[in-house]
Amino acid sequence: MSTAAENPNLMEALVSLAKRRGFIYPSSEIYGGLNGFFDYGPLGAELKRNIRDCWWRDMVHRRDDIVGLESSIIMHPKVWEASGHVAGFTDPLVDCKVSKQRYRADQLFFAAVEVFKGITETEGARTVHRVEGSSVTEPYMAAHADVEIIGYVSALESERTKEELQEKAEALKRKKSAKGILHAVKVREFTEATPEEIPLIPSPATGEPGSLTPPRAFNMMFETNVGALKDASSVAYLRPETAQGMFVDFKNVIDTTRVKLPFGIAQIGKSFRNEITPRNFIFRSREFEQMEMEYFIHPDADWLACHEEWLKWCQDWLRSIGLPASHLSLYEHPKEKLAFYSRRTVDIMFRYPFGVQELWGIAARSDYDLQQHQKHSGVPQTWFDEATKQKVVPHVIEPAVGVDRIFLAVLCAGYAEEDVKDEKGNVEKRTVLRLSPRLAPVKVAVLPLLKNKEALTNRARALYKKLQQRYAVQYDDGGAIGKRYRRQDEAGTPWCVTIDFDTIEKPGDTFTLRDRDSMSQKRITEAELFALLEQQVY
Amino acid sequence: MSTAAENPNLMEALVSLAKRRGFIYPSSEIYGGLNGFFDYGPLGAELKRNIRDCWWRDMVHRRDDIVGLESSIIMHPKVWEASGHVAGFTDPLVDCKVSKQRYRADQLFFAAVEVFKGITETEGARTVHRVEGSSVTEPYMAAHADVEIIGYVSALESERTKEELQEKAEALKRKKSAKGILHAVKVREFTEATPEEIPLIPSPATGEPGSLTPPRAFNMMFETNVGALKDASSVAYLRPETAQGMFVDFKNVIDTTRVKLPFGIAQIGKSFRNEITPRNFIFRSREFEQMEMEYFIHPDADWLACHEEWLKWCQDWLRSIGLPASHLSLYEHPKEKLAFYSRRTVDIMFRYPFGVQELWGIAARSDYDLQQHQKHSGVPQTWFDEATKQKVVPHVIEPAVGVDRIFLAVLCAGYAEEDVKDEKGNVEKRTVLRLSPRLAPVKVAVLPLLKNKEALTNRARALYKKLQQRYAVQYDDGGAIGKRYRRQDEAGTPWCVTIDFDTIEKPGDTFTLRDRDSMSQKRITEAELFALLEQQVY
Repeated sequence: MSTAAENPNLMEALVSLAKRRGFIYPSSEIYGGLNGFFDYGPLGAELKRNIRDCWWRDMVHRRDDIVGLESSIIMHPKVWEASGHVAGFTDPLVDCKVSKQRYRADQLFFAAVEVFKGITETEGARTVHRVEGSSVTEPYMAAHADVEIIGYVSALESERTKEELQEKAEALKRKKSAKGILHAVKVREFTEATPEEIPLIPSPATGEPGSLTPPRAFNMMFETNVGALKDASSVAYLRPETAQGMFVDFKNVIDTTRVKLPFGIAQIGKSFRNEITPRNFIFRSREFEQMEMEYFIHPDADWLACHEEWLKWCQDWLRSIGLPASHLSLYEHPKEKLAFYSRRTVDIMFRYPFGVQELWGIAARSDYDLQQHQKHSGVPQTWFDEATKQKVVPHVIEPAVGVDRIFLAVLCAGYAEEDVKDEKGNVEKRTVLRLSPRLAPVKVAVLPLLKNKEALTNRARALYKKLQQRYAVQYDDGGAIGKRYRRQDEAGTPWCVTIDFDTIEKPGDTFTLRDRDSMSQKRITEAELFALLEQQVY
Repeated sequence: MSTAAENPNLMEALVSLAKRRGFIYPSSEIYGGLNGFFDYGPLGAELKRNIRDCWWRDMVHRRDDIVGLESSIIMHPKVWEASGHVAGFTDPLVDCKVSKQRYRADQLFFAAVEVFKGITETEGARTVHRVEGSSVTEPYMAAHADVEIIGYVSALESERTKEELQEKAEALKRKKSAKGILHAVKVREFTEATPEEIPLIPSPATGEPGSLTPPRAFNMMFETNVGALKDASSVAYLRPETAQGMFVDFKNVIDTTRVKLPFGIAQIGKSFRNEITPRNFIFRSREFEQMEMEYFIHPDADWLACHEEWLKWCQDWLRSIGLPASHLSLYEHPKEKLAFYSRRTVDIMFRYPFGVQELWGIAARSDYDLQQHQKHSGVPQTWFDEATKQKVVPHVIEPAVGVDRIFLAVLCAGYAEEDVKDEKGNVEKRTVLRLSPRLAPVKVAVLPLLKNKEALTNRARALYKKLQQRYAVQYDDGGAIGKRYRRQDEAGTPWCVTIDFDTIEKPGDTFTLRDRDSMSQKRITEAELFALLEQQVY
């Protein structure tokens, strides 16, 4: 079996499967695509729906303390002034004036190419550095020997940024026929480059220095204009997060429902970020879908305990939709890197093929957002505490996750290529998507053993029509039964039901139930099938 | 009982209920709102989800010939060039240069104030017109008598535009002390005003002529820029309809699924139109949600029969979610007003409190869209017909409906104020939302008869927790039972289940099931309750 860890080409295989089976298409593909935008095909649309529905059912319907919301994507521009997004939702942008390429300065790395005045010799198995005749260590040289900077090298963020920079440094030394000992490169982020260094650092696009601009703050909010005037007075933004909707509607929710602290407001919806470098397929795209929940607690409540509870809830939930614990880890944001208002942020990380990356952020945001909106709107954002007869501004715990990131995670964790034996004992490859029954786009495929035997197809159609009233199911009568199983394996369908001669000839009206993961088969009645689905799918 | 027809203040009552109970809030309300944008509160978010889910289940899961899609909101700008939206998706915009108000020219009406040279006298009960001494009819005057235009009047579209113009004409005649007989006003759209007339027509904002501009074509697509450059090369649009996603992905869908003509692609998602005059609450907003389906048929297929089938399907569906036939009607677009590529369009109309308006458009669009994309992208948009071994460009039938318009329609049709008797025989008013169980935000409310009797609350909590696994339900122990029923009536909850002393003291473990519409009560077991929900909710 080959899974993420063992398959270095997993991303390639996934992107190919996603396209081939109609999970994900590049947006506007017939027009050459649009960088950072994706469409979800028939199977993808179902998988996405199921992710949303599972989350909503568990987060809203099955809890007593959380209500839902759907706020608009375009909100009043003052919302984003109050939230700090207009001033601060920026990435450092670097332009290459020659190639017109753009880079995020924190994803662009460089190093000075330093050469020591000395020589390196090989003595038997050892490498020896000599400065003016004496044998010295590299740390000694770094502290004492004369150093000449013969140029700069640059590289984009990758798994082997450092190696790439070292290779480029060696190449530069050769090219310049520089004497001396090449120091191991010290990797620095472009954000740390001094004004004097910037003109000396080569553009990754051209390999030549002189064309990179100093980083400038680039606001990632998409801008538009509402109304017929197109000037500063009509500027509005596509929301870069759904969360502000919950804050801005906080008062409306407490005034129009019967919620009591602590309680949460949950929302699923599209958000937009004008990423400088969208990448890693649907992991970082410009249009994406969020599932966020703001949990409001009393200022005196034990926020740390609450934060821990949500951290646990989110991890449990990810496991409940089939993500293995082996792929999950936690990242505690260092205190010194937190925003001033933030008390703690822990990310649940997922081991994607391109690295361990953030899946779900759980943040303790204090009362910052409500205080900001209270200040900017002039409308009190308070809750009346019956116990103390005081008005308080609640604090917030925020678990925020992306639908598309979960989508990609379940594909990564579920994808496998296996060697299996066919009916004749020949080994063949099968591709299988081990998706949780809760998430699988198709719950059951109904397969009549033969296409042209009416007794079989009638029974199969009847079962299919009945299942269809409640579940997303498929009817497939095309090709050998083994081939049809493979087709469903690739789509992630947990069960196939085959209507065969035993069904119509033997008593009991049983079908062959074939399990995707074990490939085991057993006989099952219609009632048992519905009971299985009832138990596994919700 | 008072419903739409009998309640002239229905819209006001609905807007108030929607706000009060958390169905709909104005977007960004604490910042003064944003015209044409709305948020859906806890009950609204559930109702919206249910509308989408019902449509998806019936349109996609329960049919064999339709697959789903979720394409991006921001697509390649060439999509909108090909579709004709860049050039032609415009409304005629009129500015008032003094007030800075903007009007849609087709919603702005005017009339010349015409006075005949003659006098009008009252003879007994009759009104007699005389021109140079002779008694004449009004039609005679219109043909023969001298007419003087003493000025112009204008008014916005409303239920009584004509009356308003007539009144203004009379006022103008009085103001100018004009002699003669005032003609009945001839109402004209501002789009028909001649260049000579425009400076003479008063602005509705100021009442004075001279400030209205000639109509200009205003494109309703929201514009933004993708990437860090902000110039013509980076312009992109928020989609004004979801339909183009299905056309642009047509090839991807036929290449990656097993669909065969005829088949459909369905999508639910947000669309955006920069309306000049958003109005009628959520009926015409700037951000809205569509449910569209493109049904692809063979060019030789009987498109008219297919169009009729979809027209019937859509009407049936609207009735299945509880819209009464009495509120629905059909509007056949006149042939001469159809776009050149359109063969037929019929709208299913709904009788809203503000008039009979379009709810669901069913259009036969020929092969226009696919041909346009084939031409603009250079990628063949063809289907291989096995029967004739020919490639064909399919034709399309498109049923397109708005989630928000259905939302408003079910509120309008379901809202009622009734006089009912309380337990003591006193008449009180109840407000009830008769929503279909499929759509109701809360399916069941579980009510322990008393709050402080553990045997009751334990049984109630147990039932509630079990229901909650599958359905959106509420637990309510606050206040008298009658008051709790009223609360649920207003929210549209079809059933309340009361756990009372009979539940815990008598055999059978039965509850009181109270029906929202009939207010009748009967005893029911847990198993019967689940069977009822299973039957009514899906």
